Amino acid sequence: MSGYAAQSFEAALAPYQFMRRDLRADDVALDILYCGVCHSDVHSVRNEWGGASFPMVPGHEIIGRVTDVGASVTRFRAGNVVGVGCMVDSCQHCSPCGQGLEQYCDDGATMTYNAVDRHDGTPTYGGYSDRTVVSDRFVLAIPDGLALEGAAPLLCAGITTWSPLRHWKVGKESKVAVVGLGGLGHMALKLASALGAEVTLFTRSPGKEEDARRLGAHHVVLSTDEAQMTAEKGRFNLILDTVPFVHDLNPYTQTLGLDGTLVLLGQIGPVGPDMSSVPLVMGRRAVAGSLIGGIAETQEMLDFCGRHGIVSDVEVIRMQDINTAYERMLRSDVKYRFVIDMASMKA
Amino acid sequence: MSGYAAQSFEAALAPYQFMRRDLRADDVALDILYCGVCHSDVHSVRNEWGGASFPMVPGHEIIGRVTDVGASVTRFRAGNVVGVGCMVDSCQHCSPCGQGLEQYCDDGATMTYNAVDRHDGTPTYGGYSDRTVVSDRFVLAIPDGLALEGAAPLLCAGITTWSPLRHWKVGKESKVAVVGLGGLGHMALKLASALGAEVTLFTRSPGKEEDARRLGAHHVVLSTDEAQMTAEKGRFNLILDTVPFVHDLNPYTQTLGLDGTLVLLGQIGPVGPDMSSVPLVMGRRAVAGSLIGGIAETQEMLDFCGRHGIVSDVEVIRMQDINTAYERMLRSDVKYRFVIDMASMKA
Repeated sequence: MSGYAAQSFEAALAPYQFMRRDLRADDVALDILYCGVCHSDVHSVRNEWGGASFPMVPGHEIIGRVTDVGASVTRFRAGNVVGVGCMVDSCQHCSPCGQGLEQYCDDGATMTYNAVDRHDGTPTYGGYSDRTVVSDRFVLAIPDGLALEGAAPLLCAGITTWSPLRHWKVGKESKVAVVGLGGLGHMALKLASALGAEVTLFTRSPGKEEDARRLGAHHVVLSTDEAQMTAEKGRFNLILDTVPFVHDLNPYTQTLGLDGTLVLLGQIGPVGPDMSSVPLVMGRRAVAGSLIGGIAETQEMLDFCGRHGIVSDVEVIRMQDINTAYERMLRSDVKYRFVIDMASMKA
Repeated sequence: MSGYAAQSFEAALAPYQFMRRDLRADDVALDILYCGVCHSDVHSVRNEWGGASFPMVPGHEIIGRVTDVGASVTRFRAGNVVGVGCMVDSCQHCSPCGQGLEQYCDDGATMTYNAVDRHDGTPTYGGYSDRTVVSDRFVLAIPDGLALEGAAPLLCAGITTWSPLRHWKVGKESKVAVVGLGGLGHMALKLASALGAEVTLFTRSPGKEEDARRLGAHHVVLSTDEAQMTAEKGRFNLILDTVPFVHDLNPYTQTLGLDGTLVLLGQIGPVGPDMSSVPLVMGRRAVAGSLIGGIAETQEMLDFCGRHGIVSDVEVIRMQDINTAYERMLRSDVKYRFVIDMASMKA
């Protein structure tokens, strides 16, 4: 296989030739058409979360076309357009797996890259690559009619925001706020508004109003403006906090209504300055977290996006431009997701 | 009326004569028999939460005998043994009040003391007193057969732990942990085990094991022992955190299972050192808060306690000994609640 890999946490991504396994009975082989570029790709190759294993081929927002299937695969055949997200396997017998929540697998789900295959012990390599091989249980059907480059980020940014919207039962009666307008945030606006909720964007940057409204926000609140924040007190059933760095939660928890929940999606680590229990105790509010989503709900989300014509807003790049894309992403200079066109590998 | 009041936040409690209102149509008048001594009484008279108004007559765990009722009162009559908890009124028309969650009243519930009556603007005075007058909607029926001195703390410590146990649907399949063994903690053990849950006590003090087991704990874990804490990882559906001071939540959140919730009941303010989102994100766990409970669920709790013979473990004191009791309470030198015998006022 041909792809782009980091050889160490200090190295830029560069071309890399490697092997993938032969097809097992339940495997699907695909040519990768597009792969989204997620913030966690940068965290992983720079070993900011620890546990990095090199060479690392990142990428877990994969759209591909099936080229071959193993003997026992019945759901896919050559020519199907399919997706692969953050996971490629899990134990399949624990309680979370039984509930369709493979991301919380008791034994740890096998991640799409920077992990080890649980059957043969080989490293997993991600979607910055021309081809891949994945167990059929972790392959998603992509509905007809979606722009494929825009569909790629649904496999991580889409499901990461969809799963909490569904778990916390967002619908037409819901008031939802989204903190931060990046890859996750822009999908949260699209999905929450398509679910019928009244949607508010909290942002620190003036000038995002027009874009936010186009993406589905009904209100835009400047979170640095104390008067605006005070006016939002007690309003929201659910807040999806997509901010990927340490920040103060206290201005947001007070905007939750009775029994409201703020869900952390972006920041993995300390959440920031001392959290006050006052808004929690005084309104039975909660601060929770959520990790991507299960396979069944990923398919549900893709089918929903198919019916509603929802894809990510993307900027398509060549594989060769990945290092520049990382730099731009760290400056928030992307609207709203880079997606690699894998045809560029052949150019 | 005759009671004990603080004249300022620096003053000890001392005898105090004052007026209560004449009976309104919906009022119940009672002779107070017992009044529990809650940590928040101390916080309030010392103005540690702000907003203290003096003279202050504390006390919101009141057991009394009805002496008279207003013209429209049908649920109570002279001679009934009744209870009054933390609230004596609320707006009665907002959404939380409509849900029976008067403690979260949008207009603010009228607290039993250190508040202002919403009809005539007079100060509310609590249960450290010989008599009181309360709207019938905030008067609870005390089931026959409960020791009345032990029933008094049910009105605050009981409902404060009962409400989250019910809201988070604790039953026979649940694994519940309780952090801290004080007034709230010992009620949490009793109620959770009576609901059929498997109950664990987290404590920093060795030597509480025997008492904890007698109160309903099936397991006792020394939270200062890292090996013991590691062994508890991922176990609990619900943790009731009753600790009334700043403390690190991170050792506890990791002991929650998938979709588990830690509920803060004791500490009102900053929750302590930087909270990590890792256990939250990696298992869709939550940190929440909860405030006492609504009137309907308080009656439900009292009826449950009546059926199961549950009361608080108390040390009965004379009204005259209240200042000593405060000092002992701050040293955690009470098993597990002081209750004032109001007959002492006449001695």
